[in-house]
Amino acid sequence: MSAHGADPSTLLRGADLVLTMDPFYGEGLLGAVEGCDVLIRAGAIAAVGRRLVPAPDTEMIDARGKVVLPGFVDAHTHLWQSAIRGRGAALGLYEWFSACVWTVVPRIRPSDMYRFVRLSAADALQSGTTTAVDWVPALDYEVSEAYLEAVSDSGLRFAHAAYQQPADADLAAKVLTGLVAPHPLGTPQVATVAHRDAPDHLRVHAELARELDVHLNLHLLEHRTDRSGDPVALLEEAGALGPKTLLNHVIHATGAELDLLARRGAAVAHCPLSNMRLGTGVMPLREIHRRGIRAGLGQDGGANDSADMFASMKAAVGLQRAVSQDPTGHPGPEEALYMATMGGARAIGQDDRIGSLTPGKRADVAVIDPAALNLAPCGARPAQIVFGGRPENVTDVFVDGVARKRAGRPTGEDPARLVAEAETAARALWEGAART
Amino acid sequence: MSAHGADPSTLLRGADLVLTMDPFYGEGLLGAVEGCDVLIRAGAIAAVGRRLVPAPDTEMIDARGKVVLPGFVDAHTHLWQSAIRGRGAALGLYEWFSACVWTVVPRIRPSDMYRFVRLSAADALQSGTTTAVDWVPALDYEVSEAYLEAVSDSGLRFAHAAYQQPADADLAAKVLTGLVAPHPLGTPQVATVAHRDAPDHLRVHAELARELDVHLNLHLLEHRTDRSGDPVALLEEAGALGPKTLLNHVIHATGAELDLLARRGAAVAHCPLSNMRLGTGVMPLREIHRRGIRAGLGQDGGANDSADMFASMKAAVGLQRAVSQDPTGHPGPEEALYMATMGGARAIGQDDRIGSLTPGKRADVAVIDPAALNLAPCGARPAQIVFGGRPENVTDVFVDGVARKRAGRPTGEDPARLVAEAETAARALWEGAART
Repeated sequence: MSAHGADPSTLLRGADLVLTMDPFYGEGLLGAVEGCDVLIRAGAIAAVGRRLVPAPDTEMIDARGKVVLPGFVDAHTHLWQSAIRGRGAALGLYEWFSACVWTVVPRIRPSDMYRFVRLSAADALQSGTTTAVDWVPALDYEVSEAYLEAVSDSGLRFAHAAYQQPADADLAAKVLTGLVAPHPLGTPQVATVAHRDAPDHLRVHAELARELDVHLNLHLLEHRTDRSGDPVALLEEAGALGPKTLLNHVIHATGAELDLLARRGAAVAHCPLSNMRLGTGVMPLREIHRRGIRAGLGQDGGANDSADMFASMKAAVGLQRAVSQDPTGHPGPEEALYMATMGGARAIGQDDRIGSLTPGKRADVAVIDPAALNLAPCGARPAQIVFGGRPENVTDVFVDGVARKRAGRPTGEDPARLVAEAETAARALWEGAART
Repeated sequence: MSAHGADPSTLLRGADLVLTMDPFYGEGLLGAVEGCDVLIRAGAIAAVGRRLVPAPDTEMIDARGKVVLPGFVDAHTHLWQSAIRGRGAALGLYEWFSACVWTVVPRIRPSDMYRFVRLSAADALQSGTTTAVDWVPALDYEVSEAYLEAVSDSGLRFAHAAYQQPADADLAAKVLTGLVAPHPLGTPQVATVAHRDAPDHLRVHAELARELDVHLNLHLLEHRTDRSGDPVALLEEAGALGPKTLLNHVIHATGAELDLLARRGAAVAHCPLSNMRLGTGVMPLREIHRRGIRAGLGQDGGANDSADMFASMKAAVGLQRAVSQDPTGHPGPEEALYMATMGGARAIGQDDRIGSLTPGKRADVAVIDPAALNLAPCGARPAQIVFGGRPENVTDVFVDGVARKRAGRPTGEDPARLVAEAETAARALWEGAART
């Protein structure tokens, strides 16, 4: 029985194609199985196979014609940033930070933070994302409470990377141990920054992450000017590079630095649509892949303005191709699908729990209906999903075995209400700003 | 009264924002007007203004909260290519041509061609596109008949650029004058290629285009190897460069060649998602814009796998930004919206009829509902539409005043039937291929 109450078994019956993401259960990198059932029981994947015989009380979902795959893992985002959608549309990274982030966050009241996070989380879930890795700026405790209440109410699985100034590291620890760790769908992470003018950050935050035995999560070499701070050397000096280090963007790294990241076993989150929106550059993803560095795909919140993982997969493939003029290199569409699921799970060290439809893992599942004007006719399904798929093609989403979308509709929440409440919150935030 | 039968007046009442794309009627490049009505009468835009008083028989549509803009103009596509969605996913341009185009087109039967084109056209319309500029490979006359019947049945406005070998130029002329020109929504164009090993093409096709007084439509410098053919010099020698020349892709052009295109007044279609999918490169869009060359946005059919103009607008902005590491250059989101509407209309010389909501123009209109999980809350609407918009946010589409989507649903056609028929056609095409 899950922590979320009623949770009957569910059988997804007769799917056209199941992309298990587990080569043990199916063909190729994506572990593909045709004409297959997926049984969800007690919040977990109970079985993947043909003609499964379920217990009598099992809910049956006709998955004929459908594609079943693990829910997407958004490896880097900022859920509060529905507050700033579309803003700073022609600003570079640091100008955008100033206009849309640092000056905005402190003005968001707890009740409005709830509404922004709730909207983003619902958008992600309804688009097929089941886990979001959320880098969260410095918040007061009451705002953190509202933030985490919103994520919790949404039903999204999440990693919450709390940032605080080193002097306030206790506050981060209190949020992570008191609010995140006890949550059945939550994973604590420590958020940090690597700047030469803030040398104690890495030391204090790396120590806290070690103490809590959680991931350290930071933006690395996102902007070309970040090179002047020599952040990889700072990380290495602080002993902050290891398998539990998640590095976001990693655009302006040298080959030697990538070698070091590979040796230390650090992981990266690639956010191509954010890098395009902000003009920060093109991640050397092929160099990263060649070194065996674990890589997930991220949305990066308001720096992308979208929770559409189909668009991120397509951009991850296409940006490398357009720049290299080589359509054969990494990632192809299958590798992009892997990045968007298992890649993200591996990057945050949760591949023992999520990222594939391996029996025993938690039941985070998305169902896609390819019988749509934009996806038919059936040709090469994985490539069609990556190149032509849209959030509207996601008909069903389960997190920890609980349905969050069924037959194309959200379960148990009213999108119109979430939208209206976010509008109220935005008016309070931005009309207040205009007055001050 | 329109050529499409019943066609009552329609009033879109009280839209939150109307992007007329006409600076005479509103603010800025997009001609934005807040709190505004749009009156459609006899297939045309009759009026744009506040509190319009319609005739008694006018259908009223409550547009409060909505954004109204011209339907998108897809300046370069291949509607038949729903037949090949997802195929050749790691092939370069010419390998993809061989595997997915030249060997495939001759095998498509008329009835199946109808189904593929019908699916693509419906996908485009339901995604907010009201005009498609369609470069069509050499087809038998009966296949052309089926092709044009499908476009006609869909209700999409279209330019049909017919390609034939020079020896078959009469066949192209027969299709264009007999089937396309008489169609109230159709515009004939002559399709050609600029290859050194096919020197008579440009001469014959340019002559036909002049004779019919229509556009000449060709792919130019899409692949880096195309430089060896010196196609711009070929075009100039053939007298084929002028204001009625539409050049697709134009990735590998020199500055001097762009200067020449500008002097001759030729127009271009930019297809960023195709260029990314096929790894053909990054169009020098800023150099093109700086020279005042007219530019539209295109999907390029199966080389993109999508009819999503929101994704193309976002890619047009982001690809230039990521490569230049300059987020301030052309195009910004407003300029991308302009390219996707008026830019395309200007590129095909139809800005006297479509591309803006100027009274007197044909009523090609899209309505977007931003009260959605992915678009709320209201911040910076044009940027939100470009960076976060999705086809599912398009609630209403009118072509020539006729509703093709109303309240989020297709009018008068059953998507499930179109999908099923395209599946039948794909089985005939590809299972037949497997046997031969």
